[in-house]
Amino acid sequence: MNRKIYFAGSIRGGRADSEIYSRMIAYLSAYGEVLTEHVGSQALTAAGEDVVTDEYIFQRDIHWIRKADVVVAEVSTPSIGVGYEIATAEKMHKPVLCLYREKDGRKLSAMIAGNAVLHIAQYATFEEATEEIDRFFRSLDG
Amino acid sequence: MNRKIYFAGSIRGGRADSEIYSRMIAYLSAYGEVLTEHVGSQALTAAGEDVVTDEYIFQRDIHWIRKADVVVAEVSTPSIGVGYEIATAEKMHKPVLCLYREKDGRKLSAMIAGNAVLHIAQYATFEEATEEIDRFFRSLDG
Repeated sequence: MNRKIYFAGSIRGGRADSEIYSRMIAYLSAYGEVLTEHVGSQALTAAGEDVVTDEYIFQRDIHWIRKADVVVAEVSTPSIGVGYEIATAEKMHKPVLCLYREKDGRKLSAMIAGNAVLHIAQYATFEEATEEIDRFFRSLDG
Repeated sequence: MNRKIYFAGSIRGGRADSEIYSRMIAYLSAYGEVLTEHVGSQALTAAGEDVVTDEYIFQRDIHWIRKADVVVAEVSTPSIGVGYEIATAEKMHKPVLCLYREKDGRKLSAMIAGNAVLHIAQYATFEEATEEIDRFFRSLDG
């Protein structure tokens, strides 16, 4: 399996969902190599990666998006970086799955929810998220 | 003055800074027409615009970014939409100013802070923000 997957989740926007990111990355690993495994690390706080510069992170992440076959984004926690990554992937014509869980009555950005090019899937339980991931990969193969 | 300005600020990501957006939009109006005046409206909550569909908002905002000569984004409140708009404007080769105020020790996303194409300016007081806006427009004219 040589598929490369870019997983996007909030880091400096807040780490409230980091455990979900970790479980999604583990699940996605059955479908290919997840380039951004650090996004799910419980050791990574909202301070972000601290041994590399912002310029390094930016260049590396753009390189990884370019290399990726697909992008999977968890979009429940507001994050400037995740929005930037989704738009960047879209402009590179990568298939993008956005997984959304309603929290605190918060609504998903219209720039995502109203965008017909993206695959958007709402979930409540982790099992539902995995079903949406399965459906997304089936749609790519089909 | 026929310059068109797209102002980006958080809506569904949270409205904590809506008063600052409102003051920035008023200040920017001296430099041209702000297409997105509603972003500063105190009547607009995190529920977002409710008389139009997400598809309408998405199409309208992309059209406005395309029409705009410059984009000014307030990036202190994490927001998927603002990140998406910045990346979209960048891909259209629009000059983008990102205004950032440190809150709750939060750091700006590396996808913005590490991106050499964007104009990034940190501010503490509103007066500092206006100085950064002045400097940005001078740099475009220069």
